[in-house]
Amino acid sequence: MHFPFTAIVGQEQLKTALILNVIDPGVGGLLVMGEKGTAKSTAVRALAELLPQLTVVRECRFHCQPDAELCSFCQERKKEAPLTLGQRKMRVVELPLGITEDRLIGTLDIEHAIKQGEKRFEPGLLADANRNFLYVDEVNLLEDHIIDLLLDSAAMGVNSVEREGISFSHPARFILVGTMNPEEGDLRPQLLDRFGLCVQVSGLHGKEQRMDILRRKAAFDSDATAFGVQWREQQEELAQRIVDARERLNSVELTDSALEKIVTITSALQLDGHRADIVIMKSARALAAYRGLPDVGSAEIRDGALLALPHRQKRLPFEELGSERGRLERVLEESLP
Amino acid sequence: MHFPFTAIVGQEQLKTALILNVIDPGVGGLLVMGEKGTAKSTAVRALAELLPQLTVVRECRFHCQPDAELCSFCQERKKEAPLTLGQRKMRVVELPLGITEDRLIGTLDIEHAIKQGEKRFEPGLLADANRNFLYVDEVNLLEDHIIDLLLDSAAMGVNSVEREGISFSHPARFILVGTMNPEEGDLRPQLLDRFGLCVQVSGLHGKEQRMDILRRKAAFDSDATAFGVQWREQQEELAQRIVDARERLNSVELTDSALEKIVTITSALQLDGHRADIVIMKSARALAAYRGLPDVGSAEIRDGALLALPHRQKRLPFEELGSERGRLERVLEESLP
Amino acid sequence: MHFPFTAIVGQEQLKTALILNVIDPGVGGLLVMGEKGTAKSTAVRALAELLPQLTVVRECRFHCQPDAELCSFCQERKKEAPLTLGQRKMRVVELPLGITEDRLIGTLDIEHAIKQGEKRFEPGLLADANRNFLYVDEVNLLEDHIIDLLLDSAAMGVNSVEREGISFSHPARFILVGTMNPEEGDLRPQLLDRFGLCVQVSGLHGKEQRMDILRRKAAFDSDATAFGVQWREQQEELAQRIVDARERLNSVELTDSALEKIVTITSALQLDGHRADIVIMKSARALAAYRGLPDVGSAEIRDGALLALPHRQKRLPFEELGSERGRLERVLEESLP
Amino acid sequence: MHFPFTAIVGQEQLKTALILNVIDPGVGGLLVMGEKGTAKSTAVRALAELLPQLTVVRECRFHCQPDAELCSFCQERKKEAPLTLGQRKMRVVELPLGITEDRLIGTLDIEHAIKQGEKRFEPGLLADANRNFLYVDEVNLLEDHIIDLLLDSAAMGVNSVEREGISFSHPARFILVGTMNPEEGDLRPQLLDRFGLCVQVSGLHGKEQRMDILRRKAAFDSDATAFGVQWREQQEELAQRIVDARERLNSVELTDSALEKIVTITSALQLDGHRADIVIMKSARALAAYRGLPDVGSAEIRDGALLALPHRQKRLPFEELGSERGRLERVLEESLP
Amino acid sequence: MHFPFTAIVGQEQLKTALILNVIDPGVGGLLVMGEKGTAKSTAVRALAELLPQLTVVRECRFHCQPDAELCSFCQERKKEAPLTLGQRKMRVVELPLGITEDRLIGTLDIEHAIKQGEKRFEPGLLADANRNFLYVDEVNLLEDHIIDLLLDSAAMGVNSVEREGISFSHPARFILVGTMNPEEGDLRPQLLDRFGLCVQVSGLHGKEQRMDILRRKAAFDSDATAFGVQWREQQEELAQRIVDARERLNSVELTDSALEKIVTITSALQLDGHRADIVIMKSARALAAYRGLPDVGSAEIRDGALLALPHRQKRLPFEELGSERGRLERVLEESLP
Amino acid sequence: MHFPFTAIVGQEQLKTALILNVIDPGVGGLLVMGEKGTAKSTAVRALAELLPQLTVVRECRFHCQPDAELCSFCQERKKEAPLTLGQRKMRVVELPLGITEDRLIGTLDIEHAIKQGEKRFEPGLLADANRNFLYVDEVNLLEDHIIDLLLDSAAMGVNSVEREGISFSHPARFILVGTMNPEEGDLRPQLLDRFGLCVQVSGLHGKEQRMDILRRKAAFDSDATAFGVQWREQQEELAQRIVDARERLNSVELTDSALEKIVTITSALQLDGHRADIVIMKSARALAAYRGLPDVGSAEIRDGALLALPHRQKRLPFEELGSERGRLERVLEESLP
Repeated sequence: MHFPFTAIVGQEQLKTALILNVIDPGVGGLLVMGEKGTAKSTAVRALAELLPQLTVVRECRFHCQPDAELCSFCQERKKEAPLTLGQRKMRVVELPLGITEDRLIGTLDIEHAIKQGEKRFEPGLLADANRNFLYVDEVNLLEDHIIDLLLDSAAMGVNSVEREGISFSHPARFILVGTMNPEEGDLRPQLLDRFGLCVQVSGLHGKEQRMDILRRKAAFDSDATAFGVQWREQQEELAQRIVDARERLNSVELTDSALEKIVTITSALQLDGHRADIVIMKSARALAAYRGLPDVGSAEIRDGALLALPHRQKRLPFEELGSERGRLERVLEESLP
Repeated sequence: MHFPFTAIVGQEQLKTALILNVIDPGVGGLLVMGEKGTAKSTAVRALAELLPQLTVVRECRFHCQPDAELCSFCQERKKEAPLTLGQRKMRVVELPLGITEDRLIGTLDIEHAIKQGEKRFEPGLLADANRNFLYVDEVNLLEDHIIDLLLDSAAMGVNSVEREGISFSHPARFILVGTMNPEEGDLRPQLLDRFGLCVQVSGLHGKEQRMDILRRKAAFDSDATAFGVQWREQQEELAQRIVDARERLNSVELTDSALEKIVTITSALQLDGHRADIVIMKSARALAAYRGLPDVGSAEIRDGALLALPHRQKRLPFEELGSERGRLERVLEESLP
Repeated sequence: MHFPFTAIVGQEQLKTALILNVIDPGVGGLLVMGEKGTAKSTAVRALAELLPQLTVVRECRFHCQPDAELCSFCQERKKEAPLTLGQRKMRVVELPLGITEDRLIGTLDIEHAIKQGEKRFEPGLLADANRNFLYVDEVNLLEDHIIDLLLDSAAMGVNSVEREGISFSHPARFILVGTMNPEEGDLRPQLLDRFGLCVQVSGLHGKEQRMDILRRKAAFDSDATAFGVQWREQQEELAQRIVDARERLNSVELTDSALEKIVTITSALQLDGHRADIVIMKSARALAAYRGLPDVGSAEIRDGALLALPHRQKRLPFEELGSERGRLERVLEESLP
Repeated sequence: MHFPFTAIVGQEQLKTALILNVIDPGVGGLLVMGEKGTAKSTAVRALAELLPQLTVVRECRFHCQPDAELCSFCQERKKEAPLTLGQRKMRVVELPLGITEDRLIGTLDIEHAIKQGEKRFEPGLLADANRNFLYVDEVNLLEDHIIDLLLDSAAMGVNSVEREGISFSHPARFILVGTMNPEEGDLRPQLLDRFGLCVQVSGLHGKEQRMDILRRKAAFDSDATAFGVQWREQQEELAQRIVDARERLNSVELTDSALEKIVTITSALQLDGHRADIVIMKSARALAAYRGLPDVGSAEIRDGALLALPHRQKRLPFEELGSERGRLERVLEESLP
Repeated sequence: MHFPFTAIVGQEQLKTALILNVIDPGVGGLLVMGEKGTAKSTAVRALAELLPQLTVVRECRFHCQPDAELCSFCQERKKEAPLTLGQRKMRVVELPLGITEDRLIGTLDIEHAIKQGEKRFEPGLLADANRNFLYVDEVNLLEDHIIDLLLDSAAMGVNSVEREGISFSHPARFILVGTMNPEEGDLRPQLLDRFGLCVQVSGLHGKEQRMDILRRKAAFDSDATAFGVQWREQQEELAQRIVDARERLNSVELTDSALEKIVTITSALQLDGHRADIVIMKSARALAAYRGLPDVGSAEIRDGALLALPHRQKRLPFEELGSERGRLERVLEESLP
Repeated sequence: MHFPFTAIVGQEQLKTALILNVIDPGVGGLLVMGEKGTAKSTAVRALAELLPQLTVVRECRFHCQPDAELCSFCQERKKEAPLTLGQRKMRVVELPLGITEDRLIGTLDIEHAIKQGEKRFEPGLLADANRNFLYVDEVNLLEDHIIDLLLDSAAMGVNSVEREGISFSHPARFILVGTMNPEEGDLRPQLLDRFGLCVQVSGLHGKEQRMDILRRKAAFDSDATAFGVQWREQQEELAQRIVDARERLNSVELTDSALEKIVTITSALQLDGHRADIVIMKSARALAAYRGLPDVGSAEIRDGALLALPHRQKRLPFEELGSERGRLERVLEESLP
């Protein structure tokens, strides 16, 4: 049994960023930077626990979404008979640091090939990850070609394998959550840029909050079931709110005025490329849906930009270390009157 | 469904360089240098999507072109019966960074050897690449011997494998598109030189263009089909223009005066070797065909040189960093009155 | 036959830290820093020898605890018939330095797959470690991804393997004891933080104690059985005291005043994260149980903090090397009047 | 179809050095140093294309020369029946940079051993290379032990494999052509010395020559067959001249006066060892045969020395970089009045 | 035939240290530091040759000692029938530098597993080493994890293998003799400390001794048998003396006064840990047994300390290189009046 | 056909050192230091060619010497029937630089084990080397553990393999000839010391000698058979002289006065260890036998020392580079009046 998401003390930015990714996976994942001992992995697992079950194609190793693009295998089966459906809990799939390319994207099923004389696809971790969270601890310690593969799949939403005589493709839509400790080496700017959002987490410093953490920990450890009952109502309320936001998402309006505000911000910050524009647009829209608003307002753009830009800012020449945050806030103030 | 090639905002040099390679693959590929978040891979995929289907030999793993040099396998079959033909969409084959020599050029089919006691060629990625785009992201991070193999095949147009007792050859004519971020290490000058063209891409800075990108992205994401309908006419027009240019290519005239202009430019720039001359000649001719001209004029030579030379210029002693571009333009001005 | 735990001369902190982990494995393991030639491994083996036998599921390769979460295999068997039980001595499992990921977490049983055509899980060292001590000598020389796996399992208490088509999970609750010589390279702060307790051991300097060591060593070497008889009573007394403390643990009270003292200490030391708070709380409670007290008092918090904090303190700017200990004691004095 | 050897513009030293090796393989190969984009590999392939077919033992995997030392396999067969002969085009075998020792010299045929229970030799690249060109691009990037093996075989003219219980030997007489770019690391002097000749190639700078290259390239690309017809006569003439020179080679006289001139040159240059003497002697004699002369004259010694010595000269203390060429020419002038 | 131990010229400390290890293997091995060309390995082999045969369990691959802890295999057999015994010469097992962990500790017998479908233990070098000398030349060039395994086994006297589904243990009591040349890199202090004794050997400088060496070498080389006859009596005398000392060992008394002297020495030298105390105690006792004394006197402690301490001393701050020996002798003089 | 040994121009020290090793292999091999292009390998091959055939046990893969220590296999066969004998030419076995330990010392014959279910020894290169020359080009580039194995076998004269369940030993008495170029890294002093002799070779500088080399090379290349006839008498004379010296070797006397001269020399040079003494003694005796003398005189000691000491001298502090030779000659002059 997991610790309830709503019982996590503090860490509001982290919780919001995760929720926005659940509402619109197009937001593009989350990079969590921060100190040790902060409940990063706990929060992701707790959110997965809280969400309603997914409707999946039964007996599909990729748990295909019935009304979306199907895997090669489901496409074949659908020609013969209607697919039968089932329910499945959303999971947090962890990517081990030393993972090989084969195990990530899948490979030839050697055993089957030897015994049956027929080539078959042996799914990799991206198969598990489909429609789930993919959690990568210390993403900056991952080998470069692995993180490239990962980010490519995250961007394409599909994993196409053509090798060793196998040709197979399956959906690979997952919410990528990476963590890194900035003291242990950086990510290349290219890779940073491909995480949709970025939050900085740190331990709480208020005494009351720290005591709350101890009290809840002790209570959960001594009787997890009783603790769960105590938080059930808040959990159900949040789950419903997320479900509602997902449905509302496509009807939230993006006015020209909102678009102009977005490009004004990124121009003022002299950001390369266009991904920043797109991520602000998507997270602001998801926020508006979460808040029950009909269109994207300045507040959503501001909050979206605060999640979308911290890892995309360049340090200017002569600028002091750490002053990027101040510049970001100044620009937001000027651009969003 | 892919984003339409003609709906890509800006990036004219990149689009032209890709089109010239499609008109005459002898132009020798393209190296794209540039910032993150610029739609390099999107453009290549979109162009492949737009092009008409290829006529291929049916059941050939190399999708041989029926009226060109055939693979060993098709040569055998042709002796027995006329080859049957089919149609196939052009594809973008991606080269993963950690690829091994075996998987690139093909190897012995171990499974078949063990089970049937007979040696058979297991095609590699170069087989997939035949008649397609071969896209290599961050080509400067590739191992040297792999990029050597790649550029050798690109130059020869054929992949001959003689090893482990197998002797097999198949056509390997592909359009090589490499990208690199100059901040992440260089390519050796030898390798640079073997890419036909080179373009520098960067994000757009005009507000209107940036808003256009957001608008088109939002429209495409919300309803890709409707968006496709909207751009269909422009797509078909460009496809036809490329087909026409291919047919016209061999009849475009190369006058002595044009040749002299070319060698004047490269002499003035003190370029080593003769590849620069040849690439300017070929891209200028493809441009003339694309523009519907009967012969190669100064404008085509100028535009061809601007695509063919950026990665071939040497920095002169005492010359300032970045001043090569200026020198190139000055030389062009003087040589092409 | 092992040297009796109670016959070890000196090293009180080491012995207490081991005992607290046995009383409450949630304390989270122990890191022993120290000189060569100090009986670190002897102490762990001796404590395992002294403890009463474990009740285990018979014929389970993970020696599951019958009334706790079971392994996949026992879960299956339990559906068919009640599990039969057995007794098993607690062991010290040693982790060799060059261990591979496969051998740590388990892997596919290749032999069985080839011969029976069916995939089966081949347990790794974490299977042996379940409910035992896992002893890692020179933990700082271990490869990073191995220690990550180790600490993850220690934290989760379960080893879930999903790969090569196998899906298996088994409990992996062990007491992790690592040693390191600080002269041979550090652990990353993240890893340090994940060891519950830390003690510094060094050789004894008193002449009488040193002669005692020689006398006991000579006596044990000449007649181990006679030596064992001589210490039997003290051994049994300690064993009983540990068993009693385990039973009492859940009824020891944690007052708000105790919690406040704990967060006061860690705030004063400006420690990151919340693990320090939690470990002090747990070890203080285990100490209270060991001492037969009804609730956690200042003495237990103080002693717990002295075990929980040495490896978590940061050196402050301008602070001298080695002055952390003094600061810790000063803070304890001020916080626990 | 290859570009005709005689249609290559310029590069006279390179062409002569290749031809001398074809006339007398004892000259010992060629090292080509030079800039990128110069037609090194084209020239070798073109020369192989031009030469008359070889007479070979039919069905011999080493294409043994019937009147020379035979491979172990042909020796066996010859005892039973006269060998049947065939014709075979000379080839250019390329050595890939990452080649392993096994693949170079051959190894045990594992497949045959497993299936037939009998050990058989699986030939390596040196088998392919027998009586052909062996072309090594960027020889300075090859691993040391591979280049050692290569040069040993080149020197011995035979490849003897005694390992894994196999004992096999076959002729391995090939013309080794290596290229290197001096900007990418050196060869050890030992290795340099073992290449018979060395030429420096660079791009042509004359405008007319550069335009010729473009004209011939465009003509060849547009209609290779017609281009071939145009150059047929010159090709046949050169082929005949080489065949004649080979026959005349043994009757060219080496007078004592010629020998004295050779040692005078190498003594004046203070060259280590005796290989320089021998290579000058051999290349001067091959030149005399090519030029139809009865004996070796000063001109042949001079031209031979200019090919044999560039890579064998030592830089003297206090001598300026690049002044070795001047010294060589001065010595030649003084020694060959 | 080996050179007789007693015919070795000089090297008294080396010979004594080897003999003490034979009398009491608990002394813990020997590290020989020294120049090249000194008969280190000759001495070990010669001593093994001289010793009486061991009584072993017949057909046991670990040559178990019948009255000591048995291997898993002998334990099984003993349940069925009394073990039959045999005689076996003591051997010198050499550890090759590149040895793998598998070959050191043993592994799964793959061949047997494949053919019989049953897992069996394939013994490693530690099996050969049981009850023999294990000689490691240039121990400082060994990989760290191998030397760790080695020293662990030496310390435990048993090799327990639990992996790949095998569970096997066998005694591994050997006398570890390592050599190192201090000019070729050090051992970590931890590893140094785990060798019981340490001697420094160097070539002899006296002319007469050197001539003796030549005379004996020439005599042995010309007629080894005659040379052996000449030294037989001295050989047998020494063998008997060692056998007697082994029997007497347990009855040599260790008075409190002797123990106090020992700890006084190590305290004065400020040595870490307690291994130094123990090794002095054991080697002094073995010396007393060898000398036929009833108890350990100051002379034995002094001589034991001179063998046990050279590699355990720390250089003090400001102390000159090489002055440790002087300090050791000064401390011995003061402590052993 | 090889170049005749006696036709090699110059290089007297090299030729003598090789001959001494053939007369008494106990001299311990030869290290040749020198420039490229000097006929090191030619000389060794030519000497092997000249020597009379060896008497060997027929069908023994180690070509055992019938009257010496036999291999395990011959020992078995001899019990059943007398061994049949044959003749075999002495060979030069070359050690490839990248050789593995397995291929050097031999290993388990996997094929036989799989097919026959019985373990058999697959001989390595040391089997080929028995009673032959073992030639190692650029011995300083060999991996350390390989050269250790090599020198160990050379010293012991036997190769004992105990691993993977095989126990096999065979004689491995070979003459080790290593070459090195001092410009390419050194050998460790330990390894240097284990080569018996050392000679420095360089190219000849006299014009007449150089012309002789060219003349003989040209003559040999044009008609090897005729050249062989011309040198036959000198070849046979040398062969007979070596055979005579071998027989005389054991009767050459070593007086005390000779021994004293030897140790006087090595003492004056302050050489470590005793190998230098022994090698001078052995090579002086072989020289006396070669010269037909009844005992070892000062001239033999002097000449032996000049071959035995160059690689064993230490540079003294403040001594100039290269002045060791002068010191050696001064010491010889003083010690051998």
